[in-house]
This record gives sequence, C-alpha cells and structure tokens, in this order.
Amino acid sequence: MFGKIEHIGIAVKNLTEAEQRYTQLLGTSPYKREEVASEGVLTSFFLAGVNKIELLQALNSESAIAKFIEKRGEGIHHVAYEVEDIYKEMDRLRNSGFTLLNEHPKKGADNKLICFVHPRDAHGVLVELCQSI
Amino acid sequence: MFGKIEHIGIAVKNLTEAEQRYTQLLGTSPYKREEVASEGVLTSFFLAGVNKIELLQALNSESAIAKFIEKRGEGIHHVAYEVEDIYKEMDRLRNSGFTLLNEHPKKGADNKLICFVHPRDAHGVLVELCQSI
Repeated sequence: MFGKIEHIGIAVKNLTEAEQRYTQLLGTSPYKREEVASEGVLTSFFLAGVNKIELLQALNSESAIAKFIEKRGEGIHHVAYEVEDIYKEMDRLRNSGFTLLNEHPKKGADNKLICFVHPRDAHGVLVELCQSI
Repeated sequence: MFGKIEHIGIAVKNLTEAEQRYTQLLGTSPYKREEVASEGVLTSFFLAGVNKIELLQALNSESAIAKFIEKRGEGIHHVAYEVEDIYKEMDRLRNSGFTLLNEHPKKGADNKLICFVHPRDAHGVLVELCQSI
C-alpha cells in the first residue's frame, strides 16, 4: 500500500527562474539543490506542508527531462509515493501486471531508493516508488 | 504560504477502469465518488497517506477534462495545495503578478473553496488553491 505523496517532480527549462517563481507561488524558499549525475539532472526541493516539490532541470540533452520538455513542454514529470518496503511494493505491482521501469530499486535524489512504474499503467502518470534509506 | 498537497487531479477517459487500476496501484479502494455538475466531471477519490488522488472523467465534450484529454491525453490535470485563507493567498499571488483563473473562490468537489492559477505562471502546472469550508 502506498503512503503519502513524497514529492511531485516538475520538469523546468531554467532552474534558477523556476526557483524564483516557485518561491513566490508557494510562499517559501527551496531548502536544497542536488545534482543527480546518473540522471543528468539538477534538482531543487521545496516543502509544501508534509510534501515536497522537486524542480528538475536537464544537465544534458540525453537526460529524460530534456526529452520530456522537448516532447511535452514544461510541467509535471512524475509523482512519487512514499512506501515503507519498496521490494514488497515492487513484487505486489509486478504480480498485478504493472510494468516496472527498473528491475531493482536504484538510488535517487534526497537519499531514497526508487523505482518507476510505466505511465501507460497509471493513466498517463509516471509513478515513482520512494523509500527512505 | 501553501500547505500540503491537498490532492492531485488525474484526467481519465473511463472512471470505472481507472478506479480499478488505481485501486491496484495504490493498494487501496476509492472512498467516494462525486459529480461536480458545474465542471461537467465525475470524480473519484483515493487516499495516499495524508494526500488525496482525484480521478476525473468528463461528463460532456465541453468539460475542461474532455478538452485536456483531447489535447494531451490522459494524465495529471492539476495539483491542489491546501491553504488556510484562500482570500489572503489570492491577494498575495495577485500582488506577485500571478494570473488567477477565478476572480473569486468557487465551490469545488469535496466541500472546498477553490481557485486556479494559470499554468504559464507555474512552469506548465495548473495549480489549484484549496480551502476547506
């Protein structure tokens, strides 16, 4: 069973501009930046109550974020749900016929183990499972 | 200042099919359906921890959800943030140059006062402010 929304990930072209805009929108400043070199992204995190908003800027044209923006423009890239046991949830979803985009959990931003679920299995939404390490 | 993500709204073609799929995905069943006649939508709500997932199906071709799906396919339609005082937040955003899509708060699903912010002001994300009545 999934827990709360751990974060939503928003693909943006220019992280500094987006940070300024989201600071105005949310009424609070980002609390950290983090580069995830393996994904080719620079991220910035905000708190909205108990939830996080992650802005993502591509660091190179091969990044999934660059391709997403080229195809769809800026906007929500994924929704991450908190899970207590990512291995158990991955098994549960596999047994229900969901297509997982990672065979094993991988290390994501913010010290998490993560796994993505194919958007065609979630009505167009790229879903991330997210377990604190 | 915004609070937690009150819900994310996901545009779907067939609510019954999407309810079945999200029941499998989230590992929990929807807790209510609600028709919002003024918006031409039928909605279904799930809990994910302290957050809600709202599935939205258009009831007619004039509904914003029908137009969204025609243009972009199924997927996340909006992100709603909890606010304590929607009038104060609307003033704050107006004074920062944000374009609000509602001059005054209107009644939304789930007994809320709501107001939308133009997606061009939030890097492609349709943002909803949401105050419990």
